[in-house]
Amino acid sequence: VGELINNKKTVGVLGGMGPEATVDFMATVIAMTPVEKDQDHIHMLVDNDPTIPPRQDAILRDGADPGPAMAVMAKGLQEAGADFLVMPCNTAHAFASQITAAVDIPLLSIIDATISACSEFGTVGMLATEGCLRSDVYQQALRTAEKELILPSDAELQDFMSLTFRIKRGDKGADVASGMLRLSNALQERGAQAVIAGCTEIPLVLDKSMLDIALISSTDELAKQTVACARGERALDAQE
Amino acid sequence: VGELINNKKTVGVLGGMGPEATVDFMATVIAMTPVEKDQDHIHMLVDNDPTIPPRQDAILRDGADPGPAMAVMAKGLQEAGADFLVMPCNTAHAFASQITAAVDIPLLSIIDATISACSEFGTVGMLATEGCLRSDVYQQALRTAEKELILPSDAELQDFMSLTFRIKRGDKGADVASGMLRLSNALQERGAQAVIAGCTEIPLVLDKSMLDIALISSTDELAKQTVACARGERALDAQE
Repeated sequence: VGELINNKKTVGVLGGMGPEATVDFMATVIAMTPVEKDQDHIHMLVDNDPTIPPRQDAILRDGADPGPAMAVMAKGLQEAGADFLVMPCNTAHAFASQITAAVDIPLLSIIDATISACSEFGTVGMLATEGCLRSDVYQQALRTAEKELILPSDAELQDFMSLTFRIKRGDKGADVASGMLRLSNALQERGAQAVIAGCTEIPLVLDKSMLDIALISSTDELAKQTVACARGERALDAQE
Repeated sequence: VGELINNKKTVGVLGGMGPEATVDFMATVIAMTPVEKDQDHIHMLVDNDPTIPPRQDAILRDGADPGPAMAVMAKGLQEAGADFLVMPCNTAHAFASQITAAVDIPLLSIIDATISACSEFGTVGMLATEGCLRSDVYQQALRTAEKELILPSDAELQDFMSLTFRIKRGDKGADVASGMLRLSNALQERGAQAVIAGCTEIPLVLDKSMLDIALISSTDELAKQTVACARGERALDAQE
């Protein structure tokens, strides 16, 4: 009685980028896991460390490299028992190679998870941070997948950045949501058949139900693959 | 440039009891932290491990003792860098002595945090699990604080347990919320001036705004003290 058998894999979550997006990711994993009781859920080890140096500053403005701090975090999660890693932040994936070099366990890429959800669309719009777009991680993957990509204009990108930093300050008011929707609609008007929410702050204000076209949430797609990998329904690839 | 100074304390969260209540606690901590940017948030190390043996079974039905697994979890969080521990589950505090015996860092008690929020009320109603009530942790603390306590009847307690297990299965429908409200109202009718939500599943369906009297949320009270301790605004007591 009470002996528990648990074949599931433990997920290590590189969190805090930002903290609320990490919590949203965890809530999504929990909501996507079929359960009858607490014990059916997935074991998540989460380092919700908000002190990782700012990613935008590192990519755009010669700020401190956050890679070493991420590598330390990844090693800590591996030592604590994680079988694989996830990082619910798109921009941070510009530094993914420093993480994978530091550990022996795979990092499930949010970029790959999101791209794999685009298969039915030829032309996709992209909402992502300036740093994420500058780092070219999505554009490379979308070129490989032979997708047409529609990006925000410079002015739209500046709007997106100011909305994102308002969300990070806890401001999720109606005007933040409608501002985000306006940016998404502009991509649709220029031909996007679907919009990628390529920043984990976006789903904190923008819901699929608010759009006329598909919203591909990077949070949801990473959560879906996390649940499948943790439950052994999907193979974990060898480390990239 | 980019050099970060961080005087905040790192919080270790013994989670997974249940997983969604842990996420609700994290979200509450984040919402209560005054921030301008990611880096102002509190560092939370979270072990959201749902495989801890069921607490109700251990207290009520001779099930496996979850204390040793909690002690291992606490040690892991200390080793990973936690300065103090919290456990957003009331019933699990019946096993708190096994945690405090295993580590050198303090455990901020959810019971003490909740009781300290009752000061303006002479008579309080209590919603908590059967195991939590059987373990007497709240009753002891309320007697020390010289409060009158109004408990659910046996039938009400069985209703509470079935609602709680529905929440743990992800069912947060309107009838679960109204069932929980009915139980709270029954305590009010019998003289409660405030109702303690002494189970972290309750705030997933019941909101302060739904009650005519005060709802003292154990989740909120623990979060409030967690933020204060992490920011150094409140001293951490010596380990109990």
